Amino acid sequence: MTRIAVDAMGGDFAPSEIVKGAVWAAHDYNVAIELVGQVDKIKEVLNEISKKGIRSNRGGYYIKKIKVDLSKLDIKLTQADEIIEMGEAVGTAIRKKKNSSIVLAVDAVAKGSSDAVVAAGSTGAAMASSLFGLGRIRGIERPAIAATLPTRKEPVVLIDAGANSESSAEMLLQFALMGSTFVEKVYNRKNPKVGIMNIGEEEEKGNQLVKETHKLLKENTLGLNFIGNIEGKELFQGDVDVVVCDGFVGNVALKTIEGCSMMLFKLIKEQFKSDIISMVVGLLAKPFMKRIYKKINYEEFGGALLLGVKGITVISHGRSSSYAIKNAIRVAKEAVESGVCNKIAETLN
Amino acid sequence: MTRIAVDAMGGDFAPSEIVKGAVWAAHDYNVAIELVGQVDKIKEVLNEISKKGIRSNRGGYYIKKIKVDLSKLDIKLTQADEIIEMGEAVGTAIRKKKNSSIVLAVDAVAKGSSDAVVAAGSTGAAMASSLFGLGRIRGIERPAIAATLPTRKEPVVLIDAGANSESSAEMLLQFALMGSTFVEKVYNRKNPKVGIMNIGEEEEKGNQLVKETHKLLKENTLGLNFIGNIEGKELFQGDVDVVVCDGFVGNVALKTIEGCSMMLFKLIKEQFKSDIISMVVGLLAKPFMKRIYKKINYEEFGGALLLGVKGITVISHGRSSSYAIKNAIRVAKEAVESGVCNKIAETLN
Repeated sequence: MTRIAVDAMGGDFAPSEIVKGAVWAAHDYNVAIELVGQVDKIKEVLNEISKKGIRSNRGGYYIKKIKVDLSKLDIKLTQADEIIEMGEAVGTAIRKKKNSSIVLAVDAVAKGSSDAVVAAGSTGAAMASSLFGLGRIRGIERPAIAATLPTRKEPVVLIDAGANSESSAEMLLQFALMGSTFVEKVYNRKNPKVGIMNIGEEEEKGNQLVKETHKLLKENTLGLNFIGNIEGKELFQGDVDVVVCDGFVGNVALKTIEGCSMMLFKLIKEQFKSDIISMVVGLLAKPFMKRIYKKINYEEFGGALLLGVKGITVISHGRSSSYAIKNAIRVAKEAVESGVCNKIAETLN
Repeated sequence: MTRIAVDAMGGDFAPSEIVKGAVWAAHDYNVAIELVGQVDKIKEVLNEISKKGIRSNRGGYYIKKIKVDLSKLDIKLTQADEIIEMGEAVGTAIRKKKNSSIVLAVDAVAKGSSDAVVAAGSTGAAMASSLFGLGRIRGIERPAIAATLPTRKEPVVLIDAGANSESSAEMLLQFALMGSTFVEKVYNRKNPKVGIMNIGEEEEKGNQLVKETHKLLKENTLGLNFIGNIEGKELFQGDVDVVVCDGFVGNVALKTIEGCSMMLFKLIKEQFKSDIISMVVGLLAKPFMKRIYKKINYEEFGGALLLGVKGITVISHGRSSSYAIKNAIRVAKEAVESGVCNKIAETLN
C-alpha cells in the first residue's frame, strides 16, 4: 500500500486539521499514513477522532461528520521534536532543525518508509528540505511548483507557481516538460497542450525571457505539444493543459486569482445580507453558490506538486482544512502511483 | 470647457459604441468632444442618436435609453482617413499612417484643440502615438499604464499594467511616483499608500528587480508613503492605494483578474440555468448579482491612464461599450482638471 508522510505540525491549523485530514484520507482512499510531529499532540487529536469522529468544514460551507475506526487504518507515528515556523530563514532552519517535522517527513521518503510527503507549513522549508533530502532528478536544473487551477472545463496546471524567483529559458523549458508529464501521467490526458504565459498572442510579444522560452518550446525535441502564448484571461477557458511561466509571475498570478475569487465571494455574501429580502434570496441561492464554490475552491485540488526532485512533495495551502489535507494526500497518492518522477527522468535521458 | 479627443474608429464596436459613449459623456458630464475618424461613418451614428437616442447595454445587464439633443452639445468632428488595426506592427503603423484616427486624435491634444485622448483600439498604437505625439514628461524614463481595480473598499491603482515588458528599479520608482500622484490628484486621497507587488511579505523576498525597487522606495525622498510588499491576494483588500510592478507582471495580473471574474460570473450564470428551480432562484438573485457586477465591472473605471507623457491618454478596453467610453471620458476629464501631469513634472524637478 502506498504510504504518505504528513508533516503534522505545519499549517495554520496544525496539528488538529492536518491529523484529521490524514485520517480521513486513510479512511477514504486506501492509503497508509506516516504522521510526523510531536507524537503526544498527534495522539490527542487521534483520541478526539476516535471519540467524536471527524467534523469537516469545507471552506465555511460544508459540514459533515465521519466516523472512523482507527484500528482498521494503517497509521504510523514518527516523533519530531522541532517545528520550522512560518517566516523562519529557510536555509538556516533546515540545517539547524534536523529534527523538525518537515525535515523528518522528507527523510521518511528518502529512507523509503514513505512514498511521498504532504506539507502545509512554510513553502520555502518544504522546498528546501525536499531538494536537500531527496535530491534533484538528473538533468533538472531547478525544481518547480505545479499548481492546479480551475477553469470552465478541465483544470489547468500552472508551472512554476513560485519555487524560483529568477529563471532562465532553459529552466522554463524543463518546467514545461515536468508540467506536461504531470498532466499526462496524473490527470491522464494525452498529448497535453502547453502554452507560455504572455502579455499578448503574437510571437514577438513579451519580455526577453518569454521570447527566448517561446523559441525553445517551438523547437523542442522533447515531444511537447506547444501551442504558443496564453494571456491571463485565457487561463480559465480550459483550452490549454499546462501554462509555463517564471516563478515570480506564476506566484503573483496564483495569489491574485485567490484574492480575486475571495473578494467576489465576500461581495456576494455581503449582498445577500443587506436586508431581509436579500437574506431570503441568499438562502435560496446558497446551494447554487456552494456548487460553484466547490468547483473553484483550492481545497479541492489539495495542494501543488514540487516537481523535479526525486520523490513526490505536495505543498498545501497554509490555511488548509482537514478537507484540503485529505485531497492533498489523494493527489500525492495518485502522483506516486502514476510514476511521474520516473517518466520525467526517462524523458531527460 | 474641457475637450476630449476620442478615437472614433478604435475598438471592437467602433464607431457605433464609441460615438454613442462620447455623446453620452457630453450629455452627462458637461464636457466638449472631438470625434476623430471617418466623418461620414460618425455622422451616420450621430443621425441614429438624434432619431433613436442612446440605448445602453452595460455588460449585458443594464439597458437604458437616453434622449439627446445634439444641438446643445459641443461636438467637433475631425476627419481621419486611416485606421490602425489591432495586431498591426505599431512602430511602422504610426509612422506610415499619419492620417490614422489615433495619430490625429493625439495630434489634437498636441496642437491644443483638445485636452486629452480616449482610445479603445490597439493599446500599442495609443501608447506609441502618445509617446511620439506628446513627448515624455522631463525626467520620466518611460511612460506606464495605471489601471484602476476594484477592491472590497476603495479601488486600487496598479502601475505598470503593461506599457513596458522590461523595467529597471529606477523606472519602477518613477511608476510609484506617477501612481501616487494620480491617486492623490484624481481620486483625492491624501498621502496614498504605495506597495510593491511581491511574492511574500518579507523584505528579502522576490526577484532582483523587486529587491532593488524595494530599497529605492524605502529610501525615497520623493515623499512617497511606501508600505512595503503586497501579495496578489492582498490586492483586493483595499488597504493599499497604489501597487507598483513591472509591466509584464502587471499585465498578467490584470488579465488574470479579468479572466477569473469572467469565469466566476459565467459559472454563476450556468448554475442558474441548470433547471427550472435554479432559473427561478437565478431570476430572484439577478438584482443582487447586477449590483456586484457593477462594482467589479471594468467598464465602471472606463480605462487605464498612460502616465508619463505630456498630456492625458486614456486607454480603454478593446471591447468597450458606450457605457465604458462614457466613463473613460469622465476619467480623462477628471485627470485633465486635476493637473496630474503638471504635478508629476513638478515633483521631478
